[in-house]
Amino acid sequence: MKNRLFFESSNHKEMSMVFDAIKKEQENIGYYSLPEQETKYIIEYVNGISDKIESVAIIGIGGSSLGAKAIYEFIKPIKELKRELYFFETTDPVNINTILDTITLSKTHFFVISKSGTTIETFSIYKYIYSLQQNSSSYTFITDINSPLDKYANEIGAEVLHLPDNVGGRFSALSVVGLAPLALCGIDTKALLLGASKIKNSFFKNGYIRDTLLKKASFYAINHAKYHINCLFAYTESLRYFSEWYVQLWGESLGKRQKHSAFNVGLTPIGLIGPKDQHSFLQLIMEGTRDKSVTFIKVEDFEDGIEIPDITLPYLESLDTLNKLPFSTLINLQCDSVVEALENEGDVPIDTITIPKIDEFNIGSLIFYYELLTSLVGKLIDVDTYNQPGVEVGKRILKRKLEKDNKCR
Amino acid sequence: MKNRLFFESSNHKEMSMVFDAIKKEQENIGYYSLPEQETKYIIEYVNGISDKIESVAIIGIGGSSLGAKAIYEFIKPIKELKRELYFFETTDPVNINTILDTITLSKTHFFVISKSGTTIETFSIYKYIYSLQQNSSSYTFITDINSPLDKYANEIGAEVLHLPDNVGGRFSALSVVGLAPLALCGIDTKALLLGASKIKNSFFKNGYIRDTLLKKASFYAINHAKYHINCLFAYTESLRYFSEWYVQLWGESLGKRQKHSAFNVGLTPIGLIGPKDQHSFLQLIMEGTRDKSVTFIKVEDFEDGIEIPDITLPYLESLDTLNKLPFSTLINLQCDSVVEALENEGDVPIDTITIPKIDEFNIGSLIFYYELLTSLVGKLIDVDTYNQPGVEVGKRILKRKLEKDNKCR
Repeated sequence: MKNRLFFESSNHKEMSMVFDAIKKEQENIGYYSLPEQETKYIIEYVNGISDKIESVAIIGIGGSSLGAKAIYEFIKPIKELKRELYFFETTDPVNINTILDTITLSKTHFFVISKSGTTIETFSIYKYIYSLQQNSSSYTFITDINSPLDKYANEIGAEVLHLPDNVGGRFSALSVVGLAPLALCGIDTKALLLGASKIKNSFFKNGYIRDTLLKKASFYAINHAKYHINCLFAYTESLRYFSEWYVQLWGESLGKRQKHSAFNVGLTPIGLIGPKDQHSFLQLIMEGTRDKSVTFIKVEDFEDGIEIPDITLPYLESLDTLNKLPFSTLINLQCDSVVEALENEGDVPIDTITIPKIDEFNIGSLIFYYELLTSLVGKLIDVDTYNQPGVEVGKRILKRKLEKDNKCR
Repeated sequence: MKNRLFFESSNHKEMSMVFDAIKKEQENIGYYSLPEQETKYIIEYVNGISDKIESVAIIGIGGSSLGAKAIYEFIKPIKELKRELYFFETTDPVNINTILDTITLSKTHFFVISKSGTTIETFSIYKYIYSLQQNSSSYTFITDINSPLDKYANEIGAEVLHLPDNVGGRFSALSVVGLAPLALCGIDTKALLLGASKIKNSFFKNGYIRDTLLKKASFYAINHAKYHINCLFAYTESLRYFSEWYVQLWGESLGKRQKHSAFNVGLTPIGLIGPKDQHSFLQLIMEGTRDKSVTFIKVEDFEDGIEIPDITLPYLESLDTLNKLPFSTLINLQCDSVVEALENEGDVPIDTITIPKIDEFNIGSLIFYYELLTSLVGKLIDVDTYNQPGVEVGKRILKRKLEKDNKCR
């Protein structure tokens, strides 16, 4: 992965302070050690699941599904996988019915994932699916040790895997939460972790990414009141769900009251896909309010081999400059053109991330890169990166509404 | 459709001024008259396409595909359609290959859609597909009259349909651009236009929506420097692509220099889906910077009939309040809980839109509602709602890069 910043940031004292803080934070926050985790037990576990299983389904929401989805949807178009992966991640009945119409229950293995073990959405869906398929061997539960779900799974004699200590939902993509269902589909989880490890080592062992990440984080933090919208503009459809994962990671980690001042702060994440969003959101970046930074992600080589044929269309001869151009080159030229246009503007902070190709190693790198960046910015803007107190109020109100409604049923 | 505002706006002079301006604008801007357009020729045209055609594909980007996709993806999960619709809307080679692997070329009818008739993405893809399928009866072209594409289509003896006058790409969902491919798939286009017509009449003939739309637009305009991010939070997965359509409409129409001051302004659109994004973006709305307004969209009745079974799970008895609850009720209670939580905050402007059910009539209403709202806000914040000058620079740079690269091929 290459990362080029088009802006300067030179607050060296701040950068050295935050580096030390993150080094220290590693002792308490679990996600930092995921690249080196022992995964043999996960691989052995999924290898023990019957060959008759054709589909894998995750019942989970937010951090329990977004990471696996980001990785699965990135790899699926370019690799023949062993099994398809489905996501029950909403209480929308139309969506639940649509997925149930697609899979065969008896040939599906379900991962029921809830860190706390009491997520409303997950259990509504689980209860419904359980009423259709009561064979406990169809389910693997993933939850915190000793959670109510852990106890339930033991009670019914089902298999349970546990989240490692101090790994929050939105930082759990590279833990058993993501790895178990992905491994069952045939995703190379070892390569995923190797990619993450490469970024981790480059950061902590003074590789090229340390300076870049520190500069970027410190620029975002110092300017967070001005450039408070961060766009991730990926020039490949394959990163569509990665951008949803990024939106959760960034928004939920960085949008909150400051620890010491209680001031409402927040960096608003926006996921864009090029070139499609050149015909949509780009106008707003080019000419709208100057409140956005943009990170472009490019894939160096799509390894697809298709190119635009050497055809001249009458009246459309001006398009002959496209002839014999590989699509891979075209999409990257499109990205470069937008980068150049924004560079000319001068007041839109941009940077580019280039990954060599679409594979497990590179998505592992991207995930760890963004997790580190989030931790750095969170530290610098003085928020607790790892909690989400703002969503509790709505949960309490829902609980009250459910109790009230329950009395009428 | 019901629309309830949780904020006040009482600038009556401004509201009456903008209503008059929009009434006048109707004479020049084409989309206002789409609800009453004659569609008989479109229906007859698609009825003439062979029954052997199993799939329909749009080759188009931005305004040429987002509208049809929003409508198609809204209706598909609840209705048995005659044909499936695919979208070639990116130069990403992996994506092009994935769709080509799914369809059978000889049984697919292609709509090649480009208003200007020279869109780079559309012609790159068209040239490639044309090299695989050279039968001109496989294609219908939709473009402006006398565009280079119009001339090309006539030259090769292919069918062409024309965009009506003065209908911009992002306002063309309800024109032939959306209607022709949707009708070929079996979408009820008459009901779509009826839904649009209902909102139009309610607005122009002093129905309930006039006052609501004027209040909402004037609130957004007056407060645009403070609440410059507008979130559309839809509690149904079926509106996922509607929210992409909304992002283009809102961002590209309202993000630009003001007409009289040349000041960069812009309202930033963000599409969210509930309850999933309660576990992602909601934290940022609840506790982040106070720069966001939120519109919730609810579906009153999902007409699905599925409910959470009356099962007690050991150790999870607290979840029994969910038992016997229809999913349709649950998802709406979830929405109501978040609305109540935000209402309690007091400083986040919210409103709710409720549609009775998922069908063509209601998506037609939603589309016209948002088009009107966009026109009103654009007029009030003094931008040219219908152009997109900011994307031209990137296009010129790309053209230069293509010419340079072409010399080396």
